[in-house]
Amino acid sequence: MANQQQSAIQPTRAQDYPEWYQQVVKAADLAEASPVRGCMVIKPWGYAIWEGMQKDLDRRFKETGHSNAYFPIFIPKSFLEKEAEHVEGFAKECAVVTHHRLEAGPDGGLVPAGKLEEPLVVRPTSETIIGAMFAKWIQSYRDLPILINQWANVVRWELRTRMFLRTTEFLWQEGHTAHATADEAVAETMQMLEVYRSFAEEVMALPVICGEKTAAERFPGAVSTFTIEAMMQDRKALQAGTSHFLGQNFAKAQEITYSTVDGTLEHAWTTSWGVSTRLIGALIMTHSDDDGLICPPALAPQQIVILPVLRKNTDPAEIMDYCDRLAAELRGIRWRDERLRVLVDKRDLRGGEKTWQHIKKGVPLRLEIGARDVESDSVFMGRRDQSPKDKRGVPRAELLQTVCALLDEFQAGMLAKAIAYRDEATTEVSTQAEFEAYFAKGQPGGFAWCFAADDATYEPLLKTLKVSARCIPIADNDALGTCIFTGTPGQKKTVFAKSY
Amino acid sequence: MANQQQSAIQPTRAQDYPEWYQQVVKAADLAEASPVRGCMVIKPWGYAIWEGMQKDLDRRFKETGHSNAYFPIFIPKSFLEKEAEHVEGFAKECAVVTHHRLEAGPDGGLVPAGKLEEPLVVRPTSETIIGAMFAKWIQSYRDLPILINQWANVVRWELRTRMFLRTTEFLWQEGHTAHATADEAVAETMQMLEVYRSFAEEVMALPVICGEKTAAERFPGAVSTFTIEAMMQDRKALQAGTSHFLGQNFAKAQEITYSTVDGTLEHAWTTSWGVSTRLIGALIMTHSDDDGLICPPALAPQQIVILPVLRKNTDPAEIMDYCDRLAAELRGIRWRDERLRVLVDKRDLRGGEKTWQHIKKGVPLRLEIGARDVESDSVFMGRRDQSPKDKRGVPRAELLQTVCALLDEFQAGMLAKAIAYRDEATTEVSTQAEFEAYFAKGQPGGFAWCFAADDATYEPLLKTLKVSARCIPIADNDALGTCIFTGTPGQKKTVFAKSY
Repeated sequence: MANQQQSAIQPTRAQDYPEWYQQVVKAADLAEASPVRGCMVIKPWGYAIWEGMQKDLDRRFKETGHSNAYFPIFIPKSFLEKEAEHVEGFAKECAVVTHHRLEAGPDGGLVPAGKLEEPLVVRPTSETIIGAMFAKWIQSYRDLPILINQWANVVRWELRTRMFLRTTEFLWQEGHTAHATADEAVAETMQMLEVYRSFAEEVMALPVICGEKTAAERFPGAVSTFTIEAMMQDRKALQAGTSHFLGQNFAKAQEITYSTVDGTLEHAWTTSWGVSTRLIGALIMTHSDDDGLICPPALAPQQIVILPVLRKNTDPAEIMDYCDRLAAELRGIRWRDERLRVLVDKRDLRGGEKTWQHIKKGVPLRLEIGARDVESDSVFMGRRDQSPKDKRGVPRAELLQTVCALLDEFQAGMLAKAIAYRDEATTEVSTQAEFEAYFAKGQPGGFAWCFAADDATYEPLLKTLKVSARCIPIADNDALGTCIFTGTPGQKKTVFAKSY
Repeated sequence: MANQQQSAIQPTRAQDYPEWYQQVVKAADLAEASPVRGCMVIKPWGYAIWEGMQKDLDRRFKETGHSNAYFPIFIPKSFLEKEAEHVEGFAKECAVVTHHRLEAGPDGGLVPAGKLEEPLVVRPTSETIIGAMFAKWIQSYRDLPILINQWANVVRWELRTRMFLRTTEFLWQEGHTAHATADEAVAETMQMLEVYRSFAEEVMALPVICGEKTAAERFPGAVSTFTIEAMMQDRKALQAGTSHFLGQNFAKAQEITYSTVDGTLEHAWTTSWGVSTRLIGALIMTHSDDDGLICPPALAPQQIVILPVLRKNTDPAEIMDYCDRLAAELRGIRWRDERLRVLVDKRDLRGGEKTWQHIKKGVPLRLEIGARDVESDSVFMGRRDQSPKDKRGVPRAELLQTVCALLDEFQAGMLAKAIAYRDEATTEVSTQAEFEAYFAKGQPGGFAWCFAADDATYEPLLKTLKVSARCIPIADNDALGTCIFTGTPGQKKTVFAKSY
């Protein structure tokens, strides 16, 4: 097991960040590669974190008036072809179903048979199939707005995959809405961006910059794409969620029309917005340390683990009973409107091994309870946001009284730490030379802000530096300045970074 | 709109049952056909019923020690081929992915490109891919049992499809477990059957017969398949859920082995069990009447709808305010451990049209509130399990006090009615002649019980009659008798029916 002289995860972040990430995924038992190229298996601990995310987001979607529905996994090829930029964006990496059965081939093995008249694509996203239904459902202004969300799996045939961050199949939600006016659709786009921001910060303890994507980074077919951008511990950016104003592009491609109050026929205005299991990658890379994952209490599948410490000549029954009673007391407490999630780990394993499993999985609070603790009616508490050695005795009564405040403090501390990390790794640059120096090979890099025109002229420079425009931030971005690349005046600030 | 002289659904059950079913699906706004062959779109009201089912089942799965996880949607062809009966069962109707991109073809349109070395099948079920992971995860008896559930979409390329009952893509859960002994795996199989039975009866108000499938009806690759069988209002059976004891069949095909306490190597024993969106079909066909769906309160997305009745010369603000306050009061009440789900329908629609929409969707309680009701502090209540005309005034205070008991009564009444219907349409037959007469063309049919051998000799007769063995019931089936078809003594009773 983990030697306490060294960190539990080898290599450390400093030694080899990408490999450290893979090792955290493994050590926290979140997911593993499957025999299907580029597809992962999400294991119970990882899936439970996703369930926590789903539950909280789903509540926010419903509170803002959206309903869940479900649309087919298959998209006819002709549907994908309807919107020119859209098909351009997705045709190159999609799973194509061409047959509907397998039958014995000449050499005995099974071969595809029953060729389809029209190939079907496994959905990479559902604008086209949902748009086709919207076209049927919408007749008059009275049918608008339509506010739909879908929880689903999608497939994009990525060449290089990495657990949670980029996989051939991933799980996500995709919101799709249709409105009578551009203003309403824009307001919806911004509302959902704000839902994502508040979820990221309040639940994931993930600070994000809200902004608009530049033309080069826009969703294929969108008029404008908004994003929440987070910083990982290798100072790279990760796009954590996007909200698209689709204008009338998809409505025109798919004939989504409605009759107005005056009886004229208009195209609807649509939006789409989504977050995915990629958020788990963001969670890991923001909060983990060299001992493994640290789960924000709001998402931890178990917020508290109770570890009975049984030594020779102690009565296990008495200790187990104490642990069970404490667990029941804790489960009776509500934090953030839900009962505390508490595990009593009674497995017959060496204490060190057991403790380290929970450290690596990121359980916020560990309570060790042995015979002496039972006697003194107290627990020996370790916090995942402190060193594994910093444990302290806490009387049971005090624990019960303070546990909610403790979880609040833990959650707030994670956000504060992530903000501090990001702010320290963010700088403003005033010239192209400074920009190039900031992102030069061997430099730590981070987020660089500068005035920049949204055009393609300096794309080659970005490509050379392996940097991309992350977004044009919405907040504090009223003053205009001269683009450091093109010299064009009257530009807003843009954030640049290397990214996932 | 619906003329109250005739029923809201045309045709009625008596006139044309299959068409009545399609019309209920449409009138209740549950789902509709999609442009993708055999795939349906599940609309918000239908999906919310599914969410209710998921939530309740998920709790039961977790309470019995299972964890959710997620496995790839794609199954390599070679995996499907590993278990002989299994591939036989599914190869004939599966979506086959053969390419991983689309590119411009000779005539300008997109054609499949990037041929895969090995075709992938869109999962029809996941025994093989999950088994492959179990083989990696299981080393020793300490790793057992593994108790996993997955919520997912699956695809079976059915020739004839019908909304919810048989669609190319459907949503389901599939439990997959591995155990050290046959006894444990059998106990798991039976435990999950009981979870399904209790869910069906307590939540869906769906009475079911628990029993074992005959050899002909077994899951491909299983040692034994258990089922819950329900009766629809056309006296046909519907298999509502299955739980399979897979023995060591899949473990041997996939090398799922573990070392015992003694250090010997053994194959694990596995199970799988599932229910799907087909349950929504069962719900509709059990509970709907000629006015549309009747939702059991435990699953109704809205249990109560409040309908403000605004007439000329009434002050809408006062009525709306009264409705909102009543809704808030009702939402403060918990029934079955959850807050009441209440909608105030303020849409600007004719009162009759609005009321009939909620009748067709099956909302259990309707509260009409006009100026006089506000004045008398009471509501005018209609129950979906009574005639649309049977409405009565109820003082607000009484409503708040009795609403939980009312919902209990409503839910219990639905179950009692379904049991009575099934029992009336069930008979015991003692001879083959009686059996043939019972299922003869033009007869109403139903469930027929008789002693029967589990063999293939009378399959041709069943085929002629379009009847199948539904199950060998578990309860009250100890006495043995002589098979009415083969004359073989010492047989248990089997239930036969026409079925979906």
